[in-house]
Formats: sequence, C-alpha cells, structure tokens
Amino acid sequence: MTLTVDLNADMGEGFGPWVMGDDAGLLPVITSANIACGFHAGDPSVMAATMAAAIKQGVGLGAHPGFADLQGFGRRRLSLSHAELRNMVGYQLGAAQAMAALAGGKLRHLKLHGALANMAAEDAGIAVACFQAARDVAPDIILMAIAATAQQEAAEAIGGPWVAEVFADRAYNDDATLVDRKLPGAVIHDAETAAARMVEMIRAGAIITQSGKHIPTPIDTICLHGDTENAVTIARAVRAALQAAGIGVAQFQGR
Amino acid sequence: MTLTVDLNADMGEGFGPWVMGDDAGLLPVITSANIACGFHAGDPSVMAATMAAAIKQGVGLGAHPGFADLQGFGRRRLSLSHAELRNMVGYQLGAAQAMAALAGGKLRHLKLHGALANMAAEDAGIAVACFQAARDVAPDIILMAIAATAQQEAAEAIGGPWVAEVFADRAYNDDATLVDRKLPGAVIHDAETAAARMVEMIRAGAIITQSGKHIPTPIDTICLHGDTENAVTIARAVRAALQAAGIGVAQFQGR
Amino acid sequence: MTLTVDLNADMGEGFGPWVMGDDAGLLPVITSANIACGFHAGDPSVMAATMAAAIKQGVGLGAHPGFADLQGFGRRRLSLSHAELRNMVGYQLGAAQAMAALAGGKLRHLKLHGALANMAAEDAGIAVACFQAARDVAPDIILMAIAATAQQEAAEAIGGPWVAEVFADRAYNDDATLVDRKLPGAVIHDAETAAARMVEMIRAGAIITQSGKHIPTPIDTICLHGDTENAVTIARAVRAALQAAGIGVAQFQGR
Amino acid sequence: MTLTVDLNADMGEGFGPWVMGDDAGLLPVITSANIACGFHAGDPSVMAATMAAAIKQGVGLGAHPGFADLQGFGRRRLSLSHAELRNMVGYQLGAAQAMAALAGGKLRHLKLHGALANMAAEDAGIAVACFQAARDVAPDIILMAIAATAQQEAAEAIGGPWVAEVFADRAYNDDATLVDRKLPGAVIHDAETAAARMVEMIRAGAIITQSGKHIPTPIDTICLHGDTENAVTIARAVRAALQAAGIGVAQFQGR
Repeated sequence: MTLTVDLNADMGEGFGPWVMGDDAGLLPVITSANIACGFHAGDPSVMAATMAAAIKQGVGLGAHPGFADLQGFGRRRLSLSHAELRNMVGYQLGAAQAMAALAGGKLRHLKLHGALANMAAEDAGIAVACFQAARDVAPDIILMAIAATAQQEAAEAIGGPWVAEVFADRAYNDDATLVDRKLPGAVIHDAETAAARMVEMIRAGAIITQSGKHIPTPIDTICLHGDTENAVTIARAVRAALQAAGIGVAQFQGR
Repeated sequence: MTLTVDLNADMGEGFGPWVMGDDAGLLPVITSANIACGFHAGDPSVMAATMAAAIKQGVGLGAHPGFADLQGFGRRRLSLSHAELRNMVGYQLGAAQAMAALAGGKLRHLKLHGALANMAAEDAGIAVACFQAARDVAPDIILMAIAATAQQEAAEAIGGPWVAEVFADRAYNDDATLVDRKLPGAVIHDAETAAARMVEMIRAGAIITQSGKHIPTPIDTICLHGDTENAVTIARAVRAALQAAGIGVAQFQGR
Repeated sequence: MTLTVDLNADMGEGFGPWVMGDDAGLLPVITSANIACGFHAGDPSVMAATMAAAIKQGVGLGAHPGFADLQGFGRRRLSLSHAELRNMVGYQLGAAQAMAALAGGKLRHLKLHGALANMAAEDAGIAVACFQAARDVAPDIILMAIAATAQQEAAEAIGGPWVAEVFADRAYNDDATLVDRKLPGAVIHDAETAAARMVEMIRAGAIITQSGKHIPTPIDTICLHGDTENAVTIARAVRAALQAAGIGVAQFQGR
Repeated sequence: MTLTVDLNADMGEGFGPWVMGDDAGLLPVITSANIACGFHAGDPSVMAATMAAAIKQGVGLGAHPGFADLQGFGRRRLSLSHAELRNMVGYQLGAAQAMAALAGGKLRHLKLHGALANMAAEDAGIAVACFQAARDVAPDIILMAIAATAQQEAAEAIGGPWVAEVFADRAYNDDATLVDRKLPGAVIHDAETAAARMVEMIRAGAIITQSGKHIPTPIDTICLHGDTENAVTIARAVRAALQAAGIGVAQFQGR
C-alpha cells in the first residue's frame, strides 16, 4: 500500500487592487487550495479568478473563511458567540459555493483561517460551531482540521468527511500546538529541512515535535503557507522529497 | 379563476447594532421577503435572524443583493463590468442560500436592490449579467423583475422562472419608468390611494401611469417598501383592499 | 463655593442611513458630546450634522474614537500594539478636529469608546498609548478619564488637562470597576435612583460602590449613556436632581 | 532666473497586510508625496510609516483624499452632494494632519485622488467643494490642481496657495484633458520620452498635446505615477533629464 498525502496552500488573498502571495507559482505544486472568502481577504472577483485558475490546474477548491477584519487580515482574535461564528462561517461557505458554481467547479473542503483557526484549535466549542455550520450548509464537504487539536476532535464529533493537517514550516510543541512564532526555530525557513521532516512525519504517522516526541495522528494534508517569501521553493522541495521517498501526492478523499 | 398577487418587502436591512424598518410589523402582511445580503445592508447574524422570522411567518425567502456600499446603502451607482456584476450577485446569492439552509429554509427568489436594480431596469446587459449569475448559481430561483423594464426583458431572455413586480407607492411615467422622487406626486404617501391603484392595476393587467395610460404587463407581486415611515400602514391597506376586491394574496410561483 | 459637574453623552452614532440614539433629545440636557469618529460608528456626514447640532445647543465637542469595527460597534476587544493604538486614536482625533473646524467649532475633549475604553481602564499602557497620541495631536485637549481607573492614572501621568468621569446608570464594584452587565443590579434603569446616587457621589467626592464603600475621586463629568431606551429620561432626572441639590451643571474646564 | 519644478508621486497606498507601489524606490527621487488617507487606501499605521519615511527623506507631505471605496481603490465614480464631498475631504485631511503631527511633521499640500480628481477636473463645483473644505480645515495648505482644468479654476477662485500639476506619463488632448487610457499612446511607457517631453513642456510653459498644440499653463509639479511597473525608472529619468536641462528640482512653494 502506497502512502499518499495532499498539499494545501492559502490562495486568493488579494483584495481589490492588492495582490498577495504567488498563487500562480503555487498552483502547479499543490493539490488543494484554501480560497479566502471575502471577509479577511478576497473579494468576489478575486475569488472568481482564483477558482478559475485552480480548476484549470486540477487543484481542489476549498473555502477558507476568517474573521471580518480586512485590515487585520483575520489574524486578530475576536470574541464572538457560537451563533455568530455559525453565521459567519455559513455565510462565507455559501458565497464560496456560489463562486465555485460560477467557475464551473465545486468546493471539496473547508479550512478555517488565521485567528479563527487558532481559536478553534484551542477550543472545541468554537470548532464545533464553525464546522457544524459548514456541515449544515454543505453535508458532503471535507472539513480540514489541524491534526491533534480541538479542531480534529470537533470534526470527528460532528461526523461526515474530514482530514487532518500538519504544517511543513512550523515547529511543534510536545502538546501538538505550534511553537510561538516569536521563539527561535518556530518557523522553518529551510526548504530541505521542511521537506525532510514531512517525509519523516508521514512515515511515522505522527507529528514529531521540537523535542523529538512522536504524537500519533492521521496526516492527510500538508499546509504549505502561501504568503512567506520562499513559499514556492518550500512547496516544491516538499513535493519533490515526498515523491523521492515514494509517497504519493494526491487530493485527499476525507475520512 | 381568481386573481392572486404576492406582496413583497425589503427586510433585514439592519447592520451590526443598527436597525432599519419594521420587519416585525411587515412580516404578517407580506408573502415574500427580500433579504439584504451583507453588501449594502445586513450581516450574517442579521440575515439569520431575519430568515428565522420570515420562515416562522411562512413568508418566502428572497436574496436581495446590492452594491458593496454600506455607507450609501447601495443607492449610489457604481460602474462595474458585467463580470464584476456577475461575481457580486453570485457571491451574495450563495451567501443567502447558505443562511437559508442554516435557518432550515430555502430561497425562493432573487430581487436586485437600489442603484443596481435601477441600472438593471434601464440596461438589459446589466440585468442579464446579474440574472444569469443567479440562474447559474440557483437554476430554479425565481427572478423578480421590475415589470415592463429591461429587467423583465432579461428575465425572459435567460429562461427559467421569473415574476413581474409593480410598486404600490410610486407613480409611473408613460414609458413605465418611475417618476423621479424629486417631482411632486412621485411617492404615494396615502395608504388608501396606494391600495386603490393596486387593485385597479391588477384588474387591468397593466401599469397605469400618472397620465392614465395603461401599459399591459403581468403583475405577480407588489413591492411594499420597507423603509418608509408608514410602510406597515400602506402594506396593510394594500392587503385589505386586495382582499376586499376579491384578489387573493399568495406567494408567486414563477412564470 | 458651588459644586458643579458636567454631563456627557455619546452622540453621532449613526452610520450612512442608520440612526442610533436620540441625539436631539439629549443635546438640551447635556453639556459635553462624545462624537463617534467613523471607525465604530459615525461617518463624515453624520459627524458634520452632529457637530452642527451640538454647537447650536452650546454643547462641548468631544472626539470619541473606537476600534475600526463597525459591525461590532467597537465593543469587541482587539489586541493592537501601542503603536497601532497611537495611530488609530491620532487619526480619528485629527478627523474630528477637521470636522469641528468645518462646523465652525473646536474640540474640547476626547473620550475613548467601548472596548477600547474598557481595555484602557484596565491597562495603563494602553491608556497612555491612546492619551499620549491625543496630547501629541492636540496639546490642549481635555482627556476624559474614567475615574479611579488606569485611564485616570494615565491622564495624570501624561500631563495637560484632564477630567474624571463617573457613570449615572452603572453600579460599581469595590475596586472601582463597573459591575458586570450580566449581574443583577449592574445597570440602573430607574431614573430617580440614578439621579439620587449622582448627587450623593458628587457631595461625597467619591464613587459609592454597590456595597456602600466610598472611593474618593474627583468627579468632573457624569456619563449619561446615549443608547439605552430611557436615556433622555435618565438624563433629565439627573440634571434636575443635581440642580435641585444646588449642584451646578456646566462644561468641565480640565484639571 | 532658474526654472524649478517639483516632482510628486502617490505614496502609502497599502492597506493592512497589503503593499502597493515602490515607495522606498520613489522617495529619493520625488520632492512631494501624496499620501493616501484611509478611504481608498492607507490605514493609520500605513500612513504613519509612510510619513515617517517621507520626513526622513525630506519629501513634502501631502494629503491624498479619495472616495471611500477600498475595493475599487477610489477609481470608481460616486455621485455625492457638495456637502458630502466637503465632509469627506475635510475628514481625510484632518486625519492626515494628525498623522503628520504624530510623525513630527506637517502637511504642505493636498491633492485629490482617482475618480474624485477626475470629477473635480471636469466640474468646478465639485473642485470647489473639495478644495474649499481643505482651505477651511487648513488655511495655509497648498492645493495641488491639475493644470488647465476645473481644478485649477477652483483653486484660483478659492484663494490661498495652489500649484499646477502635469503628468509625466500621460498624453494630452487639445482641450488639456488626458487621452483616454484605452486609446493608443495614452500612457507613455518609455522613460526617456516621458522625461524629454517634461523638459519641453516646462521650457515652453505649456502643456504640449498629442497633436503638438501648446496650452500655456503654469507647471509647478510633475506627477510621477506610483503604481506603474516602471514608476521608479520613469521618475529617475525625468529627474535626470530635468537636471541635465538645467531645470531645478525642488519642493513647490504655492502661488
């Protein structure tokens, strides 16, 4: 049996006249695109162009909802009620579904963005509010959950297809949380290092933390961040390393 | 055979902490609600509350997309390309579909708002861009077109279900356009007058202009504006007058 | 020597077509207006109209900056750096100064709004970041600080004119913080009760807490909330009670 | 007597995480910076950073107000009343004044942006509404007017300091309007050509149109667009050509 993994990246993070990230460079490397839905980034026309490009490359379409905070790019925490979260995620997912339909495609997955994702990784109540909204709007959508966090717990509890995600360029603490960006070694800038540890984790079926601890987890998809300077370089290195190691790269199917 | 007509009004035009219109007062009177989709008014939580209330009253849910201009309430004209219009309408419709699903309902119709509606009434190219987007996102949605305008022309050309709308409280010119709000008599403030002319128009199967001219047209639904001071009074008067005249009030089915 | 106190209320909290609060009802009762600056509420035209009305009534103009969160009305906490806070407050103050100039007036004071005010009341670093920005933009502006909080501490540390504020309709804990709105008795809805305790506090030169404890503090201005249902009733009752008690009502001058 | 001219460019056109233009590349070349004020681009922190950089380079600070249309980057026309324009320009100018004060500088000039600038160049009523607001907020501010248009007419009518501006990279019609961007030759992409014609126009004291016609006009400043690909190349070429021709490059003083 061959091991396979999906490669995902954030896409469509422009707004109006502003551009962010190298979508054209990443699209040939990834298999799933997390497309901003207009709240933290993206607008209807950016979404349309991004989806058209992703479909053309055979990349899976995903909704990437975030907080309605354009200036903060959805990276600032907002304390919202579960009902507000439900409405906020549902709205963005519906909008993304429609944009996919206009582009002649269909959404496959949903992934939470930025501060919303972090809060949902820490608090299963928040994760359930968001993921249940997605499930209610799109019964078959694949929920992309950060592996070994409250997101995964919520996705399993809700039922329906989900996948587990690890990060190529971020170091892990022993409790499966990400090392704080302010600490040394938190972000892995070297493409080869990032690639090698991904191969190692997938073979181990575990997150390998900074201390070397193994945290067993399903790993269905690898997040290749879209907005770092060398995102395309890291993405290519990870893909090449996986293939060299005999690990297949293909769209996830959902557990 | 009994004549019947639908009564529609704009709903859910609050935003964040701000409220507009007397939705609770209008819901028992109308049969179809045009619900703002977050661009000119409405936010996900306002939409959720509005849809829940409409469903409870058995009122049909409609998407009411407009320009992304909160300060101008979608009443200021923006020159957008057909592609931009398509994306803008599709996005809002998808969002509204999702909010309807979360509320346990389903959208029945789509009506354009404010300046977008006016521009689409004058320019069939704009109307087609908007309505085709709606048709592509929601094949069965009923397009609500302003009777005897380029909107109706576009709805007919696109195919699929549509209905024709007249206004209870606005006087008509001989070319079926509305009398400019700045001119005397343009807005009909008297509830009984508004009601009587609606009965007259429906019986005549025609728009009756300020000069008395009859413009034959289907009339499927009457717009009862939601934001005028005496909107509820006018709405009740129109409904009562229709019923007194033996005209049924019921949700439209689409031509 | 006669005791005097200023009465302030939030004003100009509409946006675009939306209205909030009874500004016209409150203006004859208050002596200082805290005018929203376009980030959590208010837009340039709302500000212009509000300032014109305040000037006409002889009410002192104040800038009321808040977080850039229209949907949340500036009531949701955002974690910003001190530099971001400085820029955010400076920007809004400058805008308000210009609007005052266009209206033929001049700003007298600045008060922080909503979640920003709460955060600054708890954290002197935040308060200093905000108030120092105001002082640097407008050296003579009177900083309105919530009495006996980190806001007051910051205002004193920065230097230049400031005043201390208490709340007419909110109960106090023994540490001078406000009783949580969710707890019984937190909000005082009865106008006579609110009025009587204001007279009592001013005579005592102290905040009187729910438990009866006296916390000595200057009291220069009383906040009469502008968005509660009976705000005008409470405002009138407080003003009448103060005058009946021989306490003058007049614009503050700054310490 | 030596001829001198100012070189201006748009700056600070980022928003939140998004960047636009090569401000660092242009700042050493220009003498005046038109800084976006938060409505069509820019936010308080972008403004702060831009002003700090401009001050460091000795570049004059200018407010660059535009329509409140982030998605459209202020390039879409909005029909506003003169009062709304007055409030919109006054607000942004005041905000920019405050940001300049926080940065330890002072605004020297104001230039209208995008669609607002185009509308003011065509309609003196619009230009007067905007420029009079600026004059009322900042009596000494230098109004930058597009030469030989209704903007210049308005600046002269209002009184106080103003300067006239021509464009380095845009061809002119015989009525002093810019050749439509859609027509061939409208935009001058070649740096040497742009530079040579600037020298020619300044020596002639006239706009030289596409047909060769001379339209006599003061020329105080040359606009070097900030968002075109080779903006820095053109800017350097223009500056070098001016200096080679013995024309001084220095901040304008206002007529």
